[in-house]
Amino acid sequence: MTVLISDSEVAAALDAPTTVDAMRQALLAAYDGRLVAPPRAGAPLDGGRLMLTAGHLVGQWYGYRSYDTFGHPETEQVVVLHDGRTGAVRAVAVGAELGSRRTGALGGVAVDVLARPDAATLGVIGSGAQAWTQVWAAAAVRRLREVTVHSRSAARREAFAARVRAELGIPARAVHTARAAAHDRDVVVLATTSPEPVLTAADLSPGTHVNAVGFKQRDRSEFDTDLLDAAAVLASDSLAQAMSYTPPMLAAQPPYASRLRHLGAVLAGATSGRTDADQISVFCSVGLAGTEVFLLDRLVGILAPAR
Amino acid sequence: MTVLISDSEVAAALDAPTTVDAMRQALLAAYDGRLVAPPRAGAPLDGGRLMLTAGHLVGQWYGYRSYDTFGHPETEQVVVLHDGRTGAVRAVAVGAELGSRRTGALGGVAVDVLARPDAATLGVIGSGAQAWTQVWAAAAVRRLREVTVHSRSAARREAFAARVRAELGIPARAVHTARAAAHDRDVVVLATTSPEPVLTAADLSPGTHVNAVGFKQRDRSEFDTDLLDAAAVLASDSLAQAMSYTPPMLAAQPPYASRLRHLGAVLAGATSGRTDADQISVFCSVGLAGTEVFLLDRLVGILAPAR
Repeated sequence: MTVLISDSEVAAALDAPTTVDAMRQALLAAYDGRLVAPPRAGAPLDGGRLMLTAGHLVGQWYGYRSYDTFGHPETEQVVVLHDGRTGAVRAVAVGAELGSRRTGALGGVAVDVLARPDAATLGVIGSGAQAWTQVWAAAAVRRLREVTVHSRSAARREAFAARVRAELGIPARAVHTARAAAHDRDVVVLATTSPEPVLTAADLSPGTHVNAVGFKQRDRSEFDTDLLDAAAVLASDSLAQAMSYTPPMLAAQPPYASRLRHLGAVLAGATSGRTDADQISVFCSVGLAGTEVFLLDRLVGILAPAR
Repeated sequence: MTVLISDSEVAAALDAPTTVDAMRQALLAAYDGRLVAPPRAGAPLDGGRLMLTAGHLVGQWYGYRSYDTFGHPETEQVVVLHDGRTGAVRAVAVGAELGSRRTGALGGVAVDVLARPDAATLGVIGSGAQAWTQVWAAAAVRRLREVTVHSRSAARREAFAARVRAELGIPARAVHTARAAAHDRDVVVLATTSPEPVLTAADLSPGTHVNAVGFKQRDRSEFDTDLLDAAAVLASDSLAQAMSYTPPMLAAQPPYASRLRHLGAVLAGATSGRTDADQISVFCSVGLAGTEVFLLDRLVGILAPAR
């Protein structure tokens, strides 16, 4: 019997520590090859594309997420979880929460693994759903003392700061510039829709960790490439996906590609992360395929532990 | 709000006349370009592939069907229907009924369009789910006087004949050979899993229409190629899909390809179908993409007409 799961059920069941823990397990499974996650597939549909990212946790489950590029106002994603032994569909999640929570939680793992252990201040540029889940997940892995936020809309950045205070219980203030949001912060989240740089290396203090969630490609990037030059540690949640962007992802091109590490490899201790408190570290978020299904499997276990 | 639809709900709501009518509309929409149905896409998942066939009825809806090739015992297909204006997911169907009813109903349209108007006898070779829905749909477009059935398992062919009598109210008998099932029949359905011919042109009477549902490719075909030589009328539900088989579909290769017609074109009156009562006609079923979503849209209209 298939369970249909809505956004409100996802929101009620998946808190940040649970979600970050699931993504930690997913990154380890991807690194050691148990989570198979091929490049995404798509079908052109006249006006938009239907896209599929699939995953298979060998011996456990397989499934996929679908989304589309029509740009409709209420478009919803679908995540499908098949039982790996019988092939039956255990659950279908419809909406946006599962996808945005898993992206946030991948960023939370990056903060946990790469930011300084004593990181306590966070600056976020952007005030959308992606920006929110990044802060939500970061607050689960570091004891944050203050959040600063900038986005172009004064109303939206004020609302974002108020939400951080109300829902996360962290002092927060909206600021007038991206530079001010990033100034003297231990962690900086870039989660804009800007195709042009809103941040340069000079805006950061030594020791800052950056989660880059928006555009990060050649001719289309929310940060200046000098950020990559300044970074002693560069990581991503999927090297295969990072290598397959069009136009190419900056960090997956020379001279950076040879330095780009798999976050799962750092987690597993197979390669080093930050080795010095003054290093700049940058996480290039790509959204490891299969992780929405991984999270849906975890969610089904929470909702129906006896199944 | 998304509706989750099970096999039992599909079976209760989609009778054969309704389903055949939906597929008639789908074939016309595909022929005149309103139904966009690109080639299928897939993702390799270590041990199997996850496959996606998508469709878009411009201005109305878009969506897809997913299925996999792991070969698990209880594997289920998923069909997703998005509202074409908002992008919201209106319905998700999980199971096998929607897919097998639509394939049967495409065959029902072929019988309606290509078989003689007075066709009254049907022979079916094969006794699985595909064989059943072909007969179920054919009975909705012709007043059948008798059904003969052959498959390798005596128990299964007897059970099939009993089901035809019980559920369709048509006299039916199981026979010992494929040739006997096809002998002196107005309509013949080939719905086996055989990669080798079980039928040749010599087994057919003049004027017979054939629905070919199983393998029909080079080096892998349930009928002898002389059936294509004998056919005055050759049609398929998608020429694009027929042209993209690997190994190639026999009817999509020389010398047959130039004669292969789109069933929607025959329906629309843009090209001729049968012009003589003694002609042999052959329908090469490929399962026009997008038709599962078309049928799900129709089903949602039946289940919730006020929505």
